[in-house]
Amino acid sequence: MNGVEDLPVTVVEKHAHAWSPRTARTRFREGLTGPTAGVAAGHTQVNLIAVPADWAYDMLLFCQRNPKPCPVLDVTDAGDIRTVLADGADLRTDLPRYRVWRDGELVAEPTDVRAHWRADLVSFLIGCSFTFEWALTDAGVPMRHVEQGRNVPMYVTDRPCRPAGRLHGPLVVSMRPVPPGRLSAAIRETSLLPAVHGGPVHCGDPTGLGIADLGRPDFGDPVTADADDIPVFWACGVTPQAAVLASRPPFAITHAPGQMFLTDARDEQYRVA
Amino acid sequence: MNGVEDLPVTVVEKHAHAWSPRTARTRFREGLTGPTAGVAAGHTQVNLIAVPADWAYDMLLFCQRNPKPCPVLDVTDAGDIRTVLADGADLRTDLPRYRVWRDGELVAEPTDVRAHWRADLVSFLIGCSFTFEWALTDAGVPMRHVEQGRNVPMYVTDRPCRPAGRLHGPLVVSMRPVPPGRLSAAIRETSLLPAVHGGPVHCGDPTGLGIADLGRPDFGDPVTADADDIPVFWACGVTPQAAVLASRPPFAITHAPGQMFLTDARDEQYRVA
Repeated sequence: MNGVEDLPVTVVEKHAHAWSPRTARTRFREGLTGPTAGVAAGHTQVNLIAVPADWAYDMLLFCQRNPKPCPVLDVTDAGDIRTVLADGADLRTDLPRYRVWRDGELVAEPTDVRAHWRADLVSFLIGCSFTFEWALTDAGVPMRHVEQGRNVPMYVTDRPCRPAGRLHGPLVVSMRPVPPGRLSAAIRETSLLPAVHGGPVHCGDPTGLGIADLGRPDFGDPVTADADDIPVFWACGVTPQAAVLASRPPFAITHAPGQMFLTDARDEQYRVA
Repeated sequence: MNGVEDLPVTVVEKHAHAWSPRTARTRFREGLTGPTAGVAAGHTQVNLIAVPADWAYDMLLFCQRNPKPCPVLDVTDAGDIRTVLADGADLRTDLPRYRVWRDGELVAEPTDVRAHWRADLVSFLIGCSFTFEWALTDAGVPMRHVEQGRNVPMYVTDRPCRPAGRLHGPLVVSMRPVPPGRLSAAIRETSLLPAVHGGPVHCGDPTGLGIADLGRPDFGDPVTADADDIPVFWACGVTPQAAVLASRPPFAITHAPGQMFLTDARDEQYRVA
């Protein structure tokens, strides 16, 4: 394996699917950045949201009450930079890119948050739809955004999440175009992965979720679909970020959309049968 | 339907499987008591644990960190006696029997906790293995304890749960004897119900869980197995009670083991595929 100094630092490399999670975390720690779809095949990627301890109960309850967008895979003790999901990882440095929020406003998008870290931060690691992309690929469902080298498109919907304490906000979804002949497989395979958003929340007409234009996602990139493809929408782990935006906690750190934390867990651990 | 004054008040009636959840809750509110296995067929039964608000984060985190024994189906706001899972229900009256705990000591086992209720209590409703007994029955797995008119046997194991803040304690399991020819079906069917404990944590030799004598359960009743039956152990929602016993919060209210809260939810809502 070459040293990270040889790597481009703005996009993830073509062969990143073969990296170990530890290699991916090291590359990101050293400054590599970009969407992580397709990185470290078969290993579970997670969303990060860290909030001050006095907001942790509201966040955990928000996740419990909205399990499809917010399946919690680990919660750290306050101030802890480690997680049981990734041996030797540092949550402050090992993601490709972060977002730092004050009073619900995005104030920075650094590749390292050591300068922003606080001893009272509780980190939530939340299941990510990138996890089930391998199951979809194995089931013959094309991953258009991966084929096209783009970040998955994500949309804010008109469906409110169930509020919890001071936290409220809309459901956010990711969208993948699915050929009609693979729709059944796509639904079946993802339903068996409830810890990473489970089955779709909606298929077909995007206006059913209040989405006016698939070509203008709220996060990520637009993706080109085949003429017959059906847009399929899964609950998305960016939902807690939308709650931060809507609810304005005094401080939060999240991953940048599509730029996830790579854990040592294997996707099949989250498969129920 | 006859008035409840005509009913025996120490055991659930034979035809209770055909009750609606609302009828069951009304009977229990009026004083009927006893194990609820087999009551209101197809409707989801849940464990109750209510703790003061300043212990709620520890409890919710304990459940997140131990999802097999503690799958949370609802959490109330502090002091609220209602739940989204059961229209018109009163959590203080609608269970057959409660346990009241002070400093980890059992102080009362009333059929109504209105006199014990506090405005700062947060109630956790946690999935119960009675939910999957219908799926097991449909798959041809005999429910020995139901056939024998007994409460399901439950055992404290030597496996520690992952602690959360001030809460710690052992894993508690329920046991059902399964004929060898039905073992595969039993595992498959329950694995599809991760919100109600999912697949077994152990099959076979009980000493693998530190259980010395199946004839002496820690909660519930011993059950008679056929000679060929394999003991199969599922994570049990009494686990939070064991944590209360071990961790001694100043106050808690729980259901009495085996005497659950009947929700309006249908079991198939929790089936993933």
